[in-house]
Amino acid sequence: MPEDTICALATPNGVSALGVIRVSGKETLSVVQKSFPSKDLKKQKSHTIHYGYFVEGTEIIDEVMLSLFFAPKSFTTEDSVEISFHGSPHVAGRILEILIKNGARIAKAGEFTLRAFLNGRIDLSQAEAIADVISSENEVSRKMAIRQLKGGITREIALLRRDLLNFISLVELELDFSEEDVEFADRAAIRRLIDKIEGKILSLIDSFRYGNAVKNGTLVAIIGRPNAGKSTLLNTLLKEERAIVSSIAGTTRDTIEELLDIKGHAFRLIDTAGLRETSDEIEAIGVKKAKEKVERANILIYLVDVNTIDFSVDIEMLSSLLRKDIRIIVCATKTDGVSFSQSAFVEELFRKNISHDFSFIALSALENKNIDELIYELSSYVEKLKSEENTTVITNKRHYEALQKSLDAINKVKDALSSHIFTELLAYELRQVLEYLGEISGEVTNDEILGNIFSKFCIGK
Amino acid sequence: MPEDTICALATPNGVSALGVIRVSGKETLSVVQKSFPSKDLKKQKSHTIHYGYFVEGTEIIDEVMLSLFFAPKSFTTEDSVEISFHGSPHVAGRILEILIKNGARIAKAGEFTLRAFLNGRIDLSQAEAIADVISSENEVSRKMAIRQLKGGITREIALLRRDLLNFISLVELELDFSEEDVEFADRAAIRRLIDKIEGKILSLIDSFRYGNAVKNGTLVAIIGRPNAGKSTLLNTLLKEERAIVSSIAGTTRDTIEELLDIKGHAFRLIDTAGLRETSDEIEAIGVKKAKEKVERANILIYLVDVNTIDFSVDIEMLSSLLRKDIRIIVCATKTDGVSFSQSAFVEELFRKNISHDFSFIALSALENKNIDELIYELSSYVEKLKSEENTTVITNKRHYEALQKSLDAINKVKDALSSHIFTELLAYELRQVLEYLGEISGEVTNDEILGNIFSKFCIGK
Repeated sequence: MPEDTICALATPNGVSALGVIRVSGKETLSVVQKSFPSKDLKKQKSHTIHYGYFVEGTEIIDEVMLSLFFAPKSFTTEDSVEISFHGSPHVAGRILEILIKNGARIAKAGEFTLRAFLNGRIDLSQAEAIADVISSENEVSRKMAIRQLKGGITREIALLRRDLLNFISLVELELDFSEEDVEFADRAAIRRLIDKIEGKILSLIDSFRYGNAVKNGTLVAIIGRPNAGKSTLLNTLLKEERAIVSSIAGTTRDTIEELLDIKGHAFRLIDTAGLRETSDEIEAIGVKKAKEKVERANILIYLVDVNTIDFSVDIEMLSSLLRKDIRIIVCATKTDGVSFSQSAFVEELFRKNISHDFSFIALSALENKNIDELIYELSSYVEKLKSEENTTVITNKRHYEALQKSLDAINKVKDALSSHIFTELLAYELRQVLEYLGEISGEVTNDEILGNIFSKFCIGK
Repeated sequence: MPEDTICALATPNGVSALGVIRVSGKETLSVVQKSFPSKDLKKQKSHTIHYGYFVEGTEIIDEVMLSLFFAPKSFTTEDSVEISFHGSPHVAGRILEILIKNGARIAKAGEFTLRAFLNGRIDLSQAEAIADVISSENEVSRKMAIRQLKGGITREIALLRRDLLNFISLVELELDFSEEDVEFADRAAIRRLIDKIEGKILSLIDSFRYGNAVKNGTLVAIIGRPNAGKSTLLNTLLKEERAIVSSIAGTTRDTIEELLDIKGHAFRLIDTAGLRETSDEIEAIGVKKAKEKVERANILIYLVDVNTIDFSVDIEMLSSLLRKDIRIIVCATKTDGVSFSQSAFVEELFRKNISHDFSFIALSALENKNIDELIYELSSYVEKLKSEENTTVITNKRHYEALQKSLDAINKVKDALSSHIFTELLAYELRQVLEYLGEISGEVTNDEILGNIFSKFCIGK
């Protein structure tokens, strides 16, 4: 258990009604007491609030409210105090400065949560869930984070590990009696268990595609020739789903993405501004730029002006952008006042020449025609990822990787079983599965893993 | 007393460890209770903290901590709850949305503090002091705000008003007995009191120059011919006083100011970039630009390269920038390796030709010569504003204006006394003084004043 007392600003740094500074660790009460003469903190009860001045010597720094949490009934399980002050960054700085003089030190990113984990208050996947709640930008990602915070994944994993551990004990018992050549652990039963665990792991791995879409959003590239109606569509979509609209910096430096929220799912519309700029050289630079943008996308919306005379450029461009795992939606645009047969002709032409499944939607942003249908198509892409049986969804890449490693180990166990390998090796492979699964909840961990996880947290958390 | 229940985010909007939402008003407990099934809030004690889920129906929105404050032991004197949640703006939005469904409404800017004032918890100058603490950017402004928050000004004003009220009672008693032509109130005593009040008001008005310098910083314009060493000096000053250095947008759109903190006092260095750009036309555009910049400044640092051959341009320029109430510091620059007599010559030349008091400092940014002296000059400018006897300093423009109005009314009282005017008019003028003084603490107020004050607050305060 860590010995020192840490402090940090827990609220965003900015001018506001109030700010909160957290202090946690063995010496919390005496550190805070030095600057809070109004009351004897040790004589108060846990979970109570106290008004007074925060001082340095005889000088009043601010009027504050202290919230007291006594060990073990705090987030970190240590004595903790939350100091609520008037929300000036200058005042925050002064209070932290004084707390440090009083014997605390500034907390590292995620250190409060790390202590909660090290002290057994939460497991690792719950710690990660806290970070996920904080960074959740929409309803679905918030819900998943809350479910994980309540221990959903940990429970699933714990059940698998318990069964596994039973068998490992039996297998290891055989090792103790190895000279007698007995089999305590029924090989057929191990095989059944391994199949069950494999099935469960596969379904969790499967859920990650959905979990990832929820957490990081679904990337949608909107592509088409200049004047095919890209910006009109973009504007219509953003207006229609007004929930959350903001510009976020893309993962590559010069792309900007629009964030669109459809039924609580995030869609990141990749801006094809670059494409528009090179409008005259569509065949050369245009296609290259489009390809780069589509590379990372989950969905490609290809826009084609239904009034075009020659579609060969569009068909060639779209064909060059195909990828096995990309969902294609071809949208005929500017269909206002255009006959149905014209749209049908375009659809047929595309179907004939494009060797990839796609939906076809005849749009008119002007008449707001079929915009709903396009939104439904986007939404259903994410819904389809959600497998019915899966209540637990993996949203965390670290969990996904641990599950992949478990799966590899499972396959080795299966090899070991079918080749009637030495019991020692079987026990070893079974232990491997156990270990990788344990990484998820943090039952098995190391400093590097912890460092990676907690360094991504906010300061003060 | 307001009847409805208000809620607002009290911490800055951003991703952080935690955020706090405030709820206040008669229905606070039932509004929050609807979404907090874990405990019966009415059965809890005031100033206690409760862990649980914040829900909407059966859906968990977040894990929260509730801090309960029961009337009248809260900031607003109403039942209040602070909801501490995981610091996601999305979660904040959801909680506020649900609180509104539960019967609260979003608070207007400053509405919590307005309620604290209306319910008699704090006076108006204390309410303003809270806003000042929140926006304080340095030690001295924080200290003054804290002093005002503790009621410093209110006490001074209250004493003046008490004495005044005594006399008004006597004067008004005379009105009741007006037919009998008696004088209960000793006119000489009133005169003495009025003189005393006038003296006090004058000294408070006087303190505003210092208060204003503390609150808004002292404007310093650094002027000089191109290559006189302005940017070198600027950099040296900013490096020397490393405390707070940041760029803030000036009051006019195209000026940028550097904020320099000397012993807790803010100095706003007006960037003379515009001047630098027009270096070739110094006599024409240069002087015009310089004048504009110097117009608002409290201090003018005029830089002159000691190695210049002809100083007439400098003397002419500086002369054209003089203003009665501006402090001039002439700095001879690039004095490294220059003989003392050369500096003395420049000083003498300037003294002879400039009809304004000024300090002269021979600087060498290169050798860091006399930079301390310049910093001392700046610092002492503010120190000198601070009158020794004044413990209370006016920092608020509204208070300053109310004091000015009181002073006008005082003068009318004095006129009334010396012209032996009707008792009715004397009583009226005395009441005016009382009223203007009362505006400061809010004993006399109206909706417009309140609207003006509180609309400038943060939401959630």
